[in-house]
Amino acid sequence: MTPTTTASLLSQRDRILLAVTVISAVAAGGLHYAHANSVVSFVVAAVALAALASLVGRSVEALGDRLGPSATGVLQSALGNLPELFVILFALKAGLFDVVKATLVGSILANVLLILGLAFLVGGRKHGRQRFAADDSRMLGLMLTLAVFILAVPSLTASLHTPAASHERVVSVVVSVVMLGLFALSLPATLARRASADQAGHSRSPSPIVASPDSAAAASKVAAHGEWPLAMAIGMLAATGIGAAFVSEWFVAALQPAMDSMGINQVFAGLVIVAIAGNAVENVVGIQLAAKNQMDYAVQVVLQSPVQIALTVAPIVCLAAGFLGQPGFDLVLSPLLLAAMVMSALVAVLVTFDGESNWFEGAALIALYAAIATSFWWG
Amino acid sequence: MTPTTTASLLSQRDRILLAVTVISAVAAGGLHYAHANSVVSFVVAAVALAALASLVGRSVEALGDRLGPSATGVLQSALGNLPELFVILFALKAGLFDVVKATLVGSILANVLLILGLAFLVGGRKHGRQRFAADDSRMLGLMLTLAVFILAVPSLTASLHTPAASHERVVSVVVSVVMLGLFALSLPATLARRASADQAGHSRSPSPIVASPDSAAAASKVAAHGEWPLAMAIGMLAATGIGAAFVSEWFVAALQPAMDSMGINQVFAGLVIVAIAGNAVENVVGIQLAAKNQMDYAVQVVLQSPVQIALTVAPIVCLAAGFLGQPGFDLVLSPLLLAAMVMSALVAVLVTFDGESNWFEGAALIALYAAIATSFWWG
Amino acid sequence: MTPTTTASLLSQRDRILLAVTVISAVAAGGLHYAHANSVVSFVVAAVALAALASLVGRSVEALGDRLGPSATGVLQSALGNLPELFVILFALKAGLFDVVKATLVGSILANVLLILGLAFLVGGRKHGRQRFAADDSRMLGLMLTLAVFILAVPSLTASLHTPAASHERVVSVVVSVVMLGLFALSLPATLARRASADQAGHSRSPSPIVASPDSAAAASKVAAHGEWPLAMAIGMLAATGIGAAFVSEWFVAALQPAMDSMGINQVFAGLVIVAIAGNAVENVVGIQLAAKNQMDYAVQVVLQSPVQIALTVAPIVCLAAGFLGQPGFDLVLSPLLLAAMVMSALVAVLVTFDGESNWFEGAALIALYAAIATSFWWG
Repeated sequence: MTPTTTASLLSQRDRILLAVTVISAVAAGGLHYAHANSVVSFVVAAVALAALASLVGRSVEALGDRLGPSATGVLQSALGNLPELFVILFALKAGLFDVVKATLVGSILANVLLILGLAFLVGGRKHGRQRFAADDSRMLGLMLTLAVFILAVPSLTASLHTPAASHERVVSVVVSVVMLGLFALSLPATLARRASADQAGHSRSPSPIVASPDSAAAASKVAAHGEWPLAMAIGMLAATGIGAAFVSEWFVAALQPAMDSMGINQVFAGLVIVAIAGNAVENVVGIQLAAKNQMDYAVQVVLQSPVQIALTVAPIVCLAAGFLGQPGFDLVLSPLLLAAMVMSALVAVLVTFDGESNWFEGAALIALYAAIATSFWWG
Repeated sequence: MTPTTTASLLSQRDRILLAVTVISAVAAGGLHYAHANSVVSFVVAAVALAALASLVGRSVEALGDRLGPSATGVLQSALGNLPELFVILFALKAGLFDVVKATLVGSILANVLLILGLAFLVGGRKHGRQRFAADDSRMLGLMLTLAVFILAVPSLTASLHTPAASHERVVSVVVSVVMLGLFALSLPATLARRASADQAGHSRSPSPIVASPDSAAAASKVAAHGEWPLAMAIGMLAATGIGAAFVSEWFVAALQPAMDSMGINQVFAGLVIVAIAGNAVENVVGIQLAAKNQMDYAVQVVLQSPVQIALTVAPIVCLAAGFLGQPGFDLVLSPLLLAAMVMSALVAVLVTFDGESNWFEGAALIALYAAIATSFWWG
Repeated sequence: MTPTTTASLLSQRDRILLAVTVISAVAAGGLHYAHANSVVSFVVAAVALAALASLVGRSVEALGDRLGPSATGVLQSALGNLPELFVILFALKAGLFDVVKATLVGSILANVLLILGLAFLVGGRKHGRQRFAADDSRMLGLMLTLAVFILAVPSLTASLHTPAASHERVVSVVVSVVMLGLFALSLPATLARRASADQAGHSRSPSPIVASPDSAAAASKVAAHGEWPLAMAIGMLAATGIGAAFVSEWFVAALQPAMDSMGINQVFAGLVIVAIAGNAVENVVGIQLAAKNQMDYAVQVVLQSPVQIALTVAPIVCLAAGFLGQPGFDLVLSPLLLAAMVMSALVAVLVTFDGESNWFEGAALIALYAAIATSFWWG
């Protein structure tokens, strides 16, 4: 079975993905160094970034096949938002504070309203009313609301003209440390509990920051693919990680001139374009799961990302700002960004508590997304 | 069965209603053209309007008896708020923007807090704890929140001093088109699904904008009435529709002088007086259903109206403004109106998710209504 | 059984509590009149206050043993927050408006976020996921949200620059009368219904303001103690009540100089220090119940207090202000206090509707508390 091994190593889908990634990444690099038209450079870099994000996810899954479900969840939580994190960090380094903040909020909005809405719409059109009564979904909605409330504190102190308004950076750092402390606390218990859950035959996620093995497995099954050897999985992860770092820099470099030439302001670019490009892959998976009537997993896959954005990406970005030469960066959002974020958190918790969905609910979520996006068109 | 036919055509209740309507409508017209005392004119017009609203509802039910439950829901959703819509349009034409906006919010407030509170109070006093676990109620609460969040976007952009603040009319029009698009999308599916549901013997509302046939039937049974022939139902609907248009104009004409002479400002008048007068009939039905311990139907009847106000009446009014010579009208609410609307939407969703009610909860809802109404006394 | 009677009258725990109370109260008085170091005076008065609060609770329980469960709940609702009410009234009399308002909000925050968080954390660490599906918990969360929304009205009118902004005292008084009316309405039904519930063998709380007999009994069982004769219970209640009044005055007198010497502003002192000191006892009971896996009772004991603070203590304080020489006091909170209060009410309702808890949810609640407390550090 020597010739078939190579074939089974890379499924048809893997090979297409790899080809798209290499071609688009090389093209993005060439356009970047050739100082090509900014809109073209931006679009090619966006495609390369989405392809790389998909490959990162694929490598994490392949690694998980080898290390067991315990590790998959933790790896996914740590690396799943890696490309998005790179983009945000490069944007931060470039001083594009508005883009950074809008992308953080836009990721939450896009997942909760646009992608969950599409999942409900596609699933509901096909299967009628769909139920997802599992506790894990409810817990995710609740955690998103708590995380968003914590993340709202610096913005509230600033926009309500409190005495703390001149200490926004300090408040932001304290909030960041508190949130990363939460994440750190959850890790040992997650690993320990997972090991015992694996033995016990059932697996429930003890921490909502970490994808439950069941939903990770369901997401992975959506696309059939070959098994990778451990070395290949690790190598691919390293290669895609490094690739994502380069492409992210080119993406950010092309962002501002591209938006300027299209007459799109920074906030709208971050909130809508960067946020959707950065989450493109997991979004497709979530909608596919809904179409297969696996709503519990669809809701978990779609809501995992915004919880991680709020609880880990936002504080990492805030704490990293000092090392990136931007010590003035804080987590203060504009009042409208804050309102949009709080509305989407409340929608997430209400929709998951409701425990059922239909296509009309999905359409209403998309309508809310469209209305909010419209209100940011002017900045 | 010739002499009995006429008797069975119009029940005792029908005849009283018809008499009150004709007398009060004629009196309202007379007082209007005689330039009588404005408070008297206003009160008589309000009585005529409530009677006409009741007759419109009665005609829709009679039409539904002939056309089947599929049509009843759609007709009710399209025509149920007709008298209120007329009042709002005439107020808009007269340039009473504050009255228009306050009436829109006041209708939502009155239904969610005052009427639902009275239903819980009356039902709870009589039957103790009452449960309403049906999905349809939960769905209505969720839809009201989503609709109110969409409707909140223009107000948020304006009151948070965003760059979009000078584009409020555009944002309002986009939001209106999005919301009416949602409604239009729901109609074909509703009709198709309903027909199949009727055959299948059970009927669940696929769209929350449209009353479920069960709740419509329950609401209709509250008052025993005779069956009307199709022609009579159509004729009555046309006559009451035209009557409502005339009386609405007189009502609005008397509104401002009447409020001035009583020292009541426009916002309070719209929020409390016009909103309660415009919803008087369905409110009585909702409370009657609660007293009969049919809480599921009571909650649906009471919450259907605010969902329709937010998702259809508000955008129609916004888009019609251009044709009524008021191109400057937008959906920007004052911050306090916005806060009151958001609070009542959250209360609606929490109360329906809770799935049970008692008289104390009802009393608390009424207390919240009283507190909010008080805060608008000064404008 | 003559010698054993005295022993069984006062349990080991009773005797320790009594000794701590007498010693700390006497010491607090001595330090007050000796004009001792303000920080020492403040700490000793705080200990005395917590001990007195514990004894008041103990006396109410002992009285309840004699009068039956019907009376216990009403007594607890009327007297449970007595020491905290005294502190707030003395602070009001001293013109410390910021302390008063911050303490009201801080009590709600401390219970909903810090104490419920600790209960979830301790209980979850010991027992894994814990469920509390009872309707009484859900009802409490819902009532807290309704009470907080009512309480928010004066603040909204003031901070949104409405025409009512110059009538804040009137709005506050109307809101207070409405809320106390709600409480008064609930009393006769509570007593009557309880009597019948006692006979029927089951007991469900008809009013969320009043602790359900079951949860009161569970809370009382946490500590084993002897039975007190009626006269002793009444005498102890009177003595501790009078003692609490004195110690509260000393506590408030030491508050401002102690905070000044420690560089802590009034708002932070009220929000965090006074609020935690005033609720210390019931908090310990709530966490103990969670550790014993009695989550339903734990949630009820912890959430009862903030409902009472919002629905009875706040209006009493507002109406009493006139008699305490502070006619200018109103219920207008600073925007950040308002936001913190609304967030904690929403968290309370979501957490109770969720119906289950784990240690991570508890940790997130504590993190939110820490973030909010940080934002008030500067005032």
